[in-house]
Amino acid sequence: MAVAACRIKVWCENVQDREDEKVRAIYPDGMHNTIADGLRELLGEAASVSTATLHEPEHGLTQAVLDETEVLVWWGHFAHEDVEWDVVERVQSRVLNGMGLVVLHSAHLSRIFRTLMGTSCHVNWRDDDEEELVWTVAPGHPIAEGIPHPIVIPEQEMYGEFFDIPAPEELVFVSSFRGGEVFRSGCCFTRGLGRIFYFSPGHEMAPLYFDPVIRRVIANGVTWAAPSTPSGAVRDDSYYGELDWFRPSGVAPPWPPVETRVRPPQ
Amino acid sequence: MAVAACRIKVWCENVQDREDEKVRAIYPDGMHNTIADGLRELLGEAASVSTATLHEPEHGLTQAVLDETEVLVWWGHFAHEDVEWDVVERVQSRVLNGMGLVVLHSAHLSRIFRTLMGTSCHVNWRDDDEEELVWTVAPGHPIAEGIPHPIVIPEQEMYGEFFDIPAPEELVFVSSFRGGEVFRSGCCFTRGLGRIFYFSPGHEMAPLYFDPVIRRVIANGVTWAAPSTPSGAVRDDSYYGELDWFRPSGVAPPWPPVETRVRPPQ
Amino acid sequence: MAVAACRIKVWCENVQDREDEKVRAIYPDGMHNTIADGLRELLGEAASVSTATLHEPEHGLTQAVLDETEVLVWWGHFAHEDVEWDVVERVQSRVLNGMGLVVLHSAHLSRIFRTLMGTSCHVNWRDDDEEELVWTVAPGHPIAEGIPHPIVIPEQEMYGEFFDIPAPEELVFVSSFRGGEVFRSGCCFTRGLGRIFYFSPGHEMAPLYFDPVIRRVIANGVTWAAPSTPSGAVRDDSYYGELDWFRPSGVAPPWPPVETRVRPPQ
Amino acid sequence: MAVAACRIKVWCENVQDREDEKVRAIYPDGMHNTIADGLRELLGEAASVSTATLHEPEHGLTQAVLDETEVLVWWGHFAHEDVEWDVVERVQSRVLNGMGLVVLHSAHLSRIFRTLMGTSCHVNWRDDDEEELVWTVAPGHPIAEGIPHPIVIPEQEMYGEFFDIPAPEELVFVSSFRGGEVFRSGCCFTRGLGRIFYFSPGHEMAPLYFDPVIRRVIANGVTWAAPSTPSGAVRDDSYYGELDWFRPSGVAPPWPPVETRVRPPQ
Repeated sequence: MAVAACRIKVWCENVQDREDEKVRAIYPDGMHNTIADGLRELLGEAASVSTATLHEPEHGLTQAVLDETEVLVWWGHFAHEDVEWDVVERVQSRVLNGMGLVVLHSAHLSRIFRTLMGTSCHVNWRDDDEEELVWTVAPGHPIAEGIPHPIVIPEQEMYGEFFDIPAPEELVFVSSFRGGEVFRSGCCFTRGLGRIFYFSPGHEMAPLYFDPVIRRVIANGVTWAAPSTPSGAVRDDSYYGELDWFRPSGVAPPWPPVETRVRPPQ
Repeated sequence: MAVAACRIKVWCENVQDREDEKVRAIYPDGMHNTIADGLRELLGEAASVSTATLHEPEHGLTQAVLDETEVLVWWGHFAHEDVEWDVVERVQSRVLNGMGLVVLHSAHLSRIFRTLMGTSCHVNWRDDDEEELVWTVAPGHPIAEGIPHPIVIPEQEMYGEFFDIPAPEELVFVSSFRGGEVFRSGCCFTRGLGRIFYFSPGHEMAPLYFDPVIRRVIANGVTWAAPSTPSGAVRDDSYYGELDWFRPSGVAPPWPPVETRVRPPQ
Repeated sequence: MAVAACRIKVWCENVQDREDEKVRAIYPDGMHNTIADGLRELLGEAASVSTATLHEPEHGLTQAVLDETEVLVWWGHFAHEDVEWDVVERVQSRVLNGMGLVVLHSAHLSRIFRTLMGTSCHVNWRDDDEEELVWTVAPGHPIAEGIPHPIVIPEQEMYGEFFDIPAPEELVFVSSFRGGEVFRSGCCFTRGLGRIFYFSPGHEMAPLYFDPVIRRVIANGVTWAAPSTPSGAVRDDSYYGELDWFRPSGVAPPWPPVETRVRPPQ
Repeated sequence: MAVAACRIKVWCENVQDREDEKVRAIYPDGMHNTIADGLRELLGEAASVSTATLHEPEHGLTQAVLDETEVLVWWGHFAHEDVEWDVVERVQSRVLNGMGLVVLHSAHLSRIFRTLMGTSCHVNWRDDDEEELVWTVAPGHPIAEGIPHPIVIPEQEMYGEFFDIPAPEELVFVSSFRGGEVFRSGCCFTRGLGRIFYFSPGHEMAPLYFDPVIRRVIANGVTWAAPSTPSGAVRDDSYYGELDWFRPSGVAPPWPPVETRVRPPQ
């Protein structure tokens, strides 16, 4: 359970906060740095936080980087289709092998989230700067710890149901919007050994990632998604087990090479 | 709930039952025809059952065929990687739009199942002709209706945990094997509007698809997976909703073109 | 799966619709009869619907009546504490043995629902005749079949989160209210062999049980909750199993007397 | 997430380990002390562990004791019906308000577990000193951390399906027995704010609570069940909310007196 110096990588596409004047005015240091600052502020010595963006070679997510990452935070919007499938597969493999993943706002349509969900992840939406209320429906969940009920967000993009995801294993937050729509806004999933938390508030047109409550939700999500030491059940591939392999007289099957690719090469 | 004349397509790769003498001796008409016969026998007039195999153009799963299919049954083993990704995407899209999918035995590693799960779907396994016992852990579930507790299968391939799937939304059957392993052998999932049932017994080296109990499980699974009439919540894409679109004064958002592709083009 | 002539009992406490002039004006025949009429209208020959109320001996729910009931619909509000615990235990036992249960509106605080949930079932609430929107979050679920997205209810009592129930096994509907609150308004549970559907709209101060859409939800819920033929896994008590009892050479354990009481005698 | 000095109470009925010579030979200090020693050994300064038994006034579980308890560990067998319902209600209320509960072995039939589950909790069983294998089906779950796959227990009482519990929210372990039966042996539930972990190995006729692996599972379970600081969503009763109570202009509803009783007074 110890999350001491959990190695966290905040990945943002860094497109609108570089090219769109309005977004740049809100996030002059880039959204990735603002989100990372929030985690540093709240997790302190319990975390080691760095960032990466779309523009770096391999989007800053080389195998070596991912191997050292325990929780990856992902924000994307305009450039989902510019993320290389090779990188997506690499991230998926790391999640299946235990890396936590926190997916924010419009990253519901990112390649990595859709790949891990197996669904379209589409939503109903409206960009009308309307009030969002985020209600806790699992008050004993660690991600809800210290979060007001409800969170009142004055101006947000509306995301509404039907949100095409598999039923969350744990549903933590449900939002309503001034226009009347509802949204499953805080959702937990497990894939392989990895834990995934999706949190929808975080429109690029509002300074939400400076907000202390939103920062707290994300920090809680990162803490929840941080991996335990993998147990003995971990295998990266199908493998053959001789009869009684697990008994003293048995022979444990050889550890197979890591191969969890579920997508075609380009 | 009515499943009158439910349109069922049984798809098998038809490789071993064509090329491997031993399998051919067990399934001289092909596994697809045997499975289809079992459904015809048990569902009678409630079903209209046809078959398709890998060897047909587009594997027999053209868009027109899928559009008319309400439940697709899938068996594959040796030739998973020969199934075209275009067909896989087409099947995925149909599942998200409501088509039921029943996945059998070694099809846990099929492209379509891995795509819908988002995980590796790997298992521990052993081919040692050992007894499998299939225990019901959800006795009120419609798929368990009329099924003995346990099902005793004299000789089966062992599939053991850890089975790398998302936690099933409903777990119906758990198996044990003579060697001591256990396996979540009957698992229900929902993806989009579609229902998916995975059932693991069905090794090609045993005549299981002639067995009345196994046939009953598959027929129950098909019945469970058959779609309801889609409700008003169905959308195939993200879509914009004007304020109050759902009120009498509102304007419903235009229906967008169908596009649920979550994979790269080849 | 056939629900032909499903035997349905609609139970209402029949207190406000007898003693409160305003409620009586809305439901002159009693809520139980109105709800029953809705089921007869929509299910036709597939259902045999009768009613019972608090005022009958044993509240109209003798063992003989329950033994013949396949789905019980329950509405209560003012008189929860007047329902005898003996009857509650009897109903619980029937649910565990496969009877479906549809729990409506303020019956979230009924003894039978709290007993089956194990929680307080408390909610936030407000009686302010405000608009409720009921959104489908599981559009492929049979209970959502044919239901508009959203259902627009002009005037309703507000029920808000946190709703102290175990996480629903299937969450079908989520409501929002004009005041901003949200509520998990359509929830599915399984207890023993029995299926339970809770649906919150149905304030006694509005003629909702005459509404065709609300009637359709309840009819869908009853159909979903109707039991399958119990499978071989059904047992009413702990029981001893000799080694190999399930094999041809084995001896099946004797069927024990039914005893599922989990509450103290008064 | 910090569980520093988590206040843990180990409750055992202490009947067989006092009166039955064979059990006393295995647990000369009582099962409660052995279990407590295991927690002290593994959790060290992170835990403050004390014990209580059936024989103390109010079974050692006064309101004051429970108010200070963060996780309660429960083992019972012969004396379930000797536990006062008043104490059971008090424990239930504390669980709903956030106290963790770890339920061991034959305590599946304890009043507190049955009350929280809402079901009979019956199992199939056989006392034949046979091998149990405990397989991890959720290898990324914190309770599986460091646990071998499988745990091999040479001699155990058999508990088999159907285990009449609600579907676990998280299924961590599944056991098989030499006789072929399977059992959902590690199950997580949430009730109100409280987390509940059931773990079945622990027959009083074997020295399992001295076993380092079994101790590790229990310590992991206690750590997982330890409460977070209650969030703002916590309410102990239904409560009225004026329109806009959660907005700056609104008036928060008064905090109601604590009352979560769901059972009848004796």
